[in-house]
Amino acid sequence: MSEQIPYKIYLSENEMPTAWYNLRADMKNKPAPLLNPGTGKPMTFDDLRPVFCDELVRQELDNDTPYIEIPAEIRDFYRMYRPSPLVRAYCLEKKLGTPAKIYYKFEGNNTSGSHKLNSAIAQAYYAKQQGLQGVTTETGAGQWGTALSMACAYLGLDCKVYMVKCSYEQKPFRREVMRTYGASVTPSPSNTTNVGRKILEKDPNTTGSLGCAISEAVEVATTTPGYRYVLGSVLNQVLLHQSVIGLEAKAALDKYGVKPDIIIGCAGGGSNLGGLIAPFMGQKLRGEEDYRIIAVEPASCPSFTRGRFAYDFCDTGMVCPLAKMYTLGSGFIPSANHAGGLRYHGMSSTLSQLYHDGLMEARAVEQTSVFEAAEYFARVEGILPAPESSHAIRAAIDEALKCKETGEEKTILFGLTGTGYFDLYAYESYNNGTMTDTIPTDEQLQKSFATLPNIG
Amino acid sequence: MSEQIPYKIYLSENEMPTAWYNLRADMKNKPAPLLNPGTGKPMTFDDLRPVFCDELVRQELDNDTPYIEIPAEIRDFYRMYRPSPLVRAYCLEKKLGTPAKIYYKFEGNNTSGSHKLNSAIAQAYYAKQQGLQGVTTETGAGQWGTALSMACAYLGLDCKVYMVKCSYEQKPFRREVMRTYGASVTPSPSNTTNVGRKILEKDPNTTGSLGCAISEAVEVATTTPGYRYVLGSVLNQVLLHQSVIGLEAKAALDKYGVKPDIIIGCAGGGSNLGGLIAPFMGQKLRGEEDYRIIAVEPASCPSFTRGRFAYDFCDTGMVCPLAKMYTLGSGFIPSANHAGGLRYHGMSSTLSQLYHDGLMEARAVEQTSVFEAAEYFARVEGILPAPESSHAIRAAIDEALKCKETGEEKTILFGLTGTGYFDLYAYESYNNGTMTDTIPTDEQLQKSFATLPNIG
Repeated sequence: MSEQIPYKIYLSENEMPTAWYNLRADMKNKPAPLLNPGTGKPMTFDDLRPVFCDELVRQELDNDTPYIEIPAEIRDFYRMYRPSPLVRAYCLEKKLGTPAKIYYKFEGNNTSGSHKLNSAIAQAYYAKQQGLQGVTTETGAGQWGTALSMACAYLGLDCKVYMVKCSYEQKPFRREVMRTYGASVTPSPSNTTNVGRKILEKDPNTTGSLGCAISEAVEVATTTPGYRYVLGSVLNQVLLHQSVIGLEAKAALDKYGVKPDIIIGCAGGGSNLGGLIAPFMGQKLRGEEDYRIIAVEPASCPSFTRGRFAYDFCDTGMVCPLAKMYTLGSGFIPSANHAGGLRYHGMSSTLSQLYHDGLMEARAVEQTSVFEAAEYFARVEGILPAPESSHAIRAAIDEALKCKETGEEKTILFGLTGTGYFDLYAYESYNNGTMTDTIPTDEQLQKSFATLPNIG
Repeated sequence: MSEQIPYKIYLSENEMPTAWYNLRADMKNKPAPLLNPGTGKPMTFDDLRPVFCDELVRQELDNDTPYIEIPAEIRDFYRMYRPSPLVRAYCLEKKLGTPAKIYYKFEGNNTSGSHKLNSAIAQAYYAKQQGLQGVTTETGAGQWGTALSMACAYLGLDCKVYMVKCSYEQKPFRREVMRTYGASVTPSPSNTTNVGRKILEKDPNTTGSLGCAISEAVEVATTTPGYRYVLGSVLNQVLLHQSVIGLEAKAALDKYGVKPDIIIGCAGGGSNLGGLIAPFMGQKLRGEEDYRIIAVEPASCPSFTRGRFAYDFCDTGMVCPLAKMYTLGSGFIPSANHAGGLRYHGMSSTLSQLYHDGLMEARAVEQTSVFEAAEYFARVEGILPAPESSHAIRAAIDEALKCKETGEEKTILFGLTGTGYFDLYAYESYNNGTMTDTIPTDEQLQKSFATLPNIG
């Protein structure tokens, strides 16, 4: 291809995907099914209906259909902020002095500040289609809650958000964005639910976790008529919706004849990583192409790199089905690091299976080193990245620096999932030199592994 | 044109403007020259050199050259966040039920959160070319300061920002963004300058104003070797750089054969409005096309609609040259409304002349009505707008509703200058119903008009 690759590759709206890609259809080893915690048997359509709306249960359980059409109304909504740009990081390459070619798929150009909107609108749409009154959810960093508030405002659905307490306190402005979009926001754990009261009784000073907030949101959804629960990560359906990221990225790269050697994404519950890698992993699974795929997680919450591959509860309150995944144990409460969106004890079952089968790598990085990369990136590429996204930046820079040593001209693609405008306390702590790293000890992990159920 | 107009029209990078358009070249009545406050005579190149770097003085004084080439390094920087999208507000149109067609040029998709980066990189570039060590500036809402910090970080220049005290307090996170980009930030008025100390002595509780902050930044620039002052609005050079907004918007509309009937922009110092309308006003001045052009300003700081067209100081400390403009008097301190970027007593000389000559209209709107429009827009179009930008949204919605009454299918173009992620205290106050409107009384204006100099 002789044409100069632009700084930003935008697809035209008629080049946008019209179907999501379901990675599971190409997996030989399917992700293990969700189990009913009472019976130990796989969750059925009927088991899941009280929690999720019907169409989403179908998507959750569908391991076979490779492409699922994106409804027209969702595609209209996507057109308000998609296609997202695929950026060639010319300035970063130059500053690093690396022969590597670096691309990032930037998902932060929407008010939710991240990729979360891709699944939020899908989940809200199906809830609306089913005639529901509203949805409940949890949010960590606040990006998912904001995304869901936006989608619900657009469709006229009620939205109740349980926000991890430490994020609620670190990010008061997130609350106001959600309120501006008409959502109600409750810090979790709260005394508005049985499970919240129970958790608070044990530890009144807890800063909360995604696991706690999920339990509260599920309890409210399953006990309030006309409501269902929606989740921003981990689930198969979420990875399905997020495949739009990877499909767009691949279409944009294909347009210029570019094939990445290394694909990097941050991993909390796996929504961004699973979406970004989907079509590439599909090729890998079908034996058509090979890629190095790297998941990057915080050293303070290292599910892939130090967790166990086992059935576990998705939530702290143990009200949800059991999922087989890399997990630190549902009793694990990560230290209050600044990447709230990555503070989850478990990991997507699909990604866990792929990792277990040796189809991808994982590494853990410490937050001071993450913020060093974030600030470097901000000054060179002009975008203030979210702490979560900056995990991927750290790894991309490290890989590019390796290329500088070896002289290899590798092509690196990473997911820049969002912006850090609501993470300024974190940047302040980094700027002031007061940020520290907290890594769980082996003893702490042993203790939380003890919370794993004896199933599966 | 039969092709469906997309939700977002992106130009390709090779369709981006390669020269800025200098509106003054087409004006029969040129904007009045800056005057030396000591002699009352027009400021010369040599008079302005101690304040601005040489190339920018040339641009400031050039009323004749219609197109000025954009240096390659600036165009490279532009490619990191430009071209910005021109959005067809299909969802807003549908929700309003208007036959009007609404487009907005969205400048918020960069970390400074606004259009300010367009001029920041230009001014920083020329300072760097001249071998300077750094620049000083003021910032109101924080968007200009952030933009300048980003540009300076990119080029390796020192950056000292004086931030209007009420914004500094309302927007603590802005400070951290600027620090992340390596700038120093001082709340203004401060006791680091003579003029700041003088202002504080008179009124120790002042919340500050752009006028005060300008005085402080100019004092530091002119008394520190290797430094010059840069300004984010008002000046001719800034309107020149911002013409990139209008040039892109016009190119995108032309591509689809669309001609706007009404063009709307918010007006503080005039940087966005002047840039957005530049090529359209050029056609109007040359008698090629006609457009209705509307400036929207806050009722709390109504320079166009209640000000006088007279020579005045650009700053409160009266250290700057005099400019002929619509002004409320440099002694006017606007109430602490939430659109910090519009709290300026004066207005671009170029726009003032055009308004005086009847080539554009102006209207003032109250902030509660502005936030009503902002929230409505956010829920429908998915973008959380800056309070400043929301002045234009208010007017665009009002015009679209008029079309609904009359059945006219007018095409409306407005400038969505930026995002409101750092304005959440303002949204909180609107959400809580505690936001109020403050409009200066005639007596207050008479008092501030008394500060006008007897010149010109």
